[in-house]
Amino acid sequence: MSVDTICALATAPGGALGIIRISGPQALEILSHVFSKNLTDAKPNTVHFGHIKDGTEVIDEVLVSVFRAPHSYTGEDSAEISCHGSRYILNKVLELLIQQGCRMANPGEYTMRAYLNGKMDLSQAEAVADLIAASNEANHQMAMSQLRGGISTKLSQLRDQLLKLTSLLELELDFSDHEDLEFADRSELLSLAKNINNHITHLAESFETGQAIKQGIPVAIVGKTNVGKSTLLNALLKDDRAIVSDIHGTTRDTIEDTIDINGITFRFIDTAGIRQTSDQVEQIGIERTYAAIDKARIVIWMVDTEPAQEELINMNKLSKNKKLILVRNKIDKAQSTPFTIVKIPLIEISAKHGTHLSNLEQAIYEAADIPTPQQSDIIVTNARHYDALIRAHAHLQRVLDGMAQNISGDLLSEDLRLTLDTLSEITGGQITPNEVLGNIFKNFCVGK
Amino acid sequence: MSVDTICALATAPGGALGIIRISGPQALEILSHVFSKNLTDAKPNTVHFGHIKDGTEVIDEVLVSVFRAPHSYTGEDSAEISCHGSRYILNKVLELLIQQGCRMANPGEYTMRAYLNGKMDLSQAEAVADLIAASNEANHQMAMSQLRGGISTKLSQLRDQLLKLTSLLELELDFSDHEDLEFADRSELLSLAKNINNHITHLAESFETGQAIKQGIPVAIVGKTNVGKSTLLNALLKDDRAIVSDIHGTTRDTIEDTIDINGITFRFIDTAGIRQTSDQVEQIGIERTYAAIDKARIVIWMVDTEPAQEELINMNKLSKNKKLILVRNKIDKAQSTPFTIVKIPLIEISAKHGTHLSNLEQAIYEAADIPTPQQSDIIVTNARHYDALIRAHAHLQRVLDGMAQNISGDLLSEDLRLTLDTLSEITGGQITPNEVLGNIFKNFCVGK
Repeated sequence: MSVDTICALATAPGGALGIIRISGPQALEILSHVFSKNLTDAKPNTVHFGHIKDGTEVIDEVLVSVFRAPHSYTGEDSAEISCHGSRYILNKVLELLIQQGCRMANPGEYTMRAYLNGKMDLSQAEAVADLIAASNEANHQMAMSQLRGGISTKLSQLRDQLLKLTSLLELELDFSDHEDLEFADRSELLSLAKNINNHITHLAESFETGQAIKQGIPVAIVGKTNVGKSTLLNALLKDDRAIVSDIHGTTRDTIEDTIDINGITFRFIDTAGIRQTSDQVEQIGIERTYAAIDKARIVIWMVDTEPAQEELINMNKLSKNKKLILVRNKIDKAQSTPFTIVKIPLIEISAKHGTHLSNLEQAIYEAADIPTPQQSDIIVTNARHYDALIRAHAHLQRVLDGMAQNISGDLLSEDLRLTLDTLSEITGGQITPNEVLGNIFKNFCVGK
Repeated sequence: MSVDTICALATAPGGALGIIRISGPQALEILSHVFSKNLTDAKPNTVHFGHIKDGTEVIDEVLVSVFRAPHSYTGEDSAEISCHGSRYILNKVLELLIQQGCRMANPGEYTMRAYLNGKMDLSQAEAVADLIAASNEANHQMAMSQLRGGISTKLSQLRDQLLKLTSLLELELDFSDHEDLEFADRSELLSLAKNINNHITHLAESFETGQAIKQGIPVAIVGKTNVGKSTLLNALLKDDRAIVSDIHGTTRDTIEDTIDINGITFRFIDTAGIRQTSDQVEQIGIERTYAAIDKARIVIWMVDTEPAQEELINMNKLSKNKKLILVRNKIDKAQSTPFTIVKIPLIEISAKHGTHLSNLEQAIYEAADIPTPQQSDIIVTNARHYDALIRAHAHLQRVLDGMAQNISGDLLSEDLRLTLDTLSEITGGQITPNEVLGNIFKNFCVGK
């Protein structure tokens, strides 16, 4: 199949500069037709100043960076044209390239070509989109770890162990006539298989954390009316806005009702319109509050006076399987007296004056219980990977069950092969159907 | 004065890629502190793959283009870092550069440095901002002509002629004792001065056209109620939207009520809410219509039946100094009969069915009377240039007046010098005060 040459705008329109990418076997020939210099013999990794022309008319003065196969992002001959960022120029340059034989790139097509040309595996290709979308440190680090082959290395280790298991089981099979010989100790094989399965399960389980980090960890603030819930929410949001250093020219996305603590996003669940103080719930126990608590991973329970024993029990019951943070507000008021019944840790704040908010933020961060990136744990963030891990686990579980029943190695090999194939789907080690590739890359931005 | 090293994001945030520019004497040294390779000895115009790191943490895999003084945009050592386009990455890379000693660039500071380092004159520097802002062909060509030194060359010719005039007048002065000698023929000198003045006036007069092209040429559609004004406006706007080829990934600015015809923008003036048909003016002659006509350069007068002689005269009077286009609408209706009294050219359309709209568009374009760029006329688009031309003209006029009164050359030299200096302001040939530079560059985008 002959490969065509593609072009696309790789930057957002509207800046001082705009970058147009062109990649494919004809990239330098096509570009030379509209550029003031011939680039067909240009050395790789060189930059050339000149102008893009439409006949005799100068469209723009530009810089062209030249890359040569296979040492380019896509693995093909390619170039990046750094133009002035006007829409007129960017459109015109793309038009000229298309007139000369380029085709507009589909979303993610550069990265898809990089994958097809062996520049990266499929999980790394997927990480590119995650990297571009990452808006905080935790998401960025997960994507960067995946881009740099974190999950690929882990899966490669698991595949090696599975291949070892397979070969040992096959060895057992080859000598099955000699009943007195036992080359592979079944209990050792079982232990190896269980170990692999544990790793797969561990990876699959990390998906919940990965999703929480990607989407923001859901937090509910609950408590009686006038206890200061909306004041606290506003104070936390404002505090975060102030902390974030905003560099001129790169404004931050303002996402409603989320805060970043140590690079992790926390998302406040709307507990019956927490910010509309006039429409507060009268007491804990209303349906909407139940629902909010149900969606949360962390529950901040706010009080200003000591709650009754009954209320404490009720709250503990409601926030089962959640992290509960008990907050005492309004400590600035003189009449505050120490709690006597409550034995669980308590964070004392004044939402109104912003007192001790950092203590609460630290408690929220710790309640999230996110492994720090320094721990270099692989966190699965991609639903396609999770799905493959779950299926690989099911196949391997059948192997384990079979081994427990002392079924002979040859009968287990099909499930072992399925386990291997299913894990390979993640990095695309097997030939990946076009339909799957299409689904993976359709959500990329154009130009990447 | 020691020059510091500046950095800024040069692309709009939000794309697949983002470009960070760094320029100044320490550019490559600072960059080497956060890049995986040492670039202090990198060859000019080379591209380097590597990663940006914060200590041991990898922030992004990037391409760095290296430029060396004086062969760079700014004339300084500089580099462009092509990062993945996430805000997190772009902010982080800028933060790291600033930690290492860079300063955030001010708007237009790269281009100001290019000017200060003699890479371009002031009118060319100003053209950079116009080029980036140009949204259609005409604006783009005016800016590109200026960037490529169109006005600079013209002014250079005028300065040469003024210097010749000055030296001839001084020659006359040197030999003024010898009354019988007349080296410079006064009538020739006068003719030379008048010629220069004509050129300056011509340039100044082109400003009106330049402004019209920059802001869109104002057009008013007037006519009686129910004649089809709003239908026509909608049809013209829709027609333009359909013509404009919109390349995927580079959406076009939607500007209300403007259309592009052959690369020129026409801006429809709100004639008493032309699109709110319920609130139409009853007949020509209402204040608001007067005001609209007054602001327009082109008046489209719509009728569906033949206007009375009186109305014709009235309209001709109102649209004095304007281009008048008489349009007969509703030609699809069977009862349409030829006009008998009206002698001026008439364009017959059906706004409802879009019939002959292209004829009307052609008439609008011709009425604009914009010199085509092929005529390579210099068009002044910049208010600062216009102001300088007007002042230069005033100084030269005094020279002309003096010469007509046979005032001796030495008395004219001060005004000649002022003429020269004033023209020099446009290209910044004289030392330009910081305040003026600040005003010029403050409207640039950051990163350019």
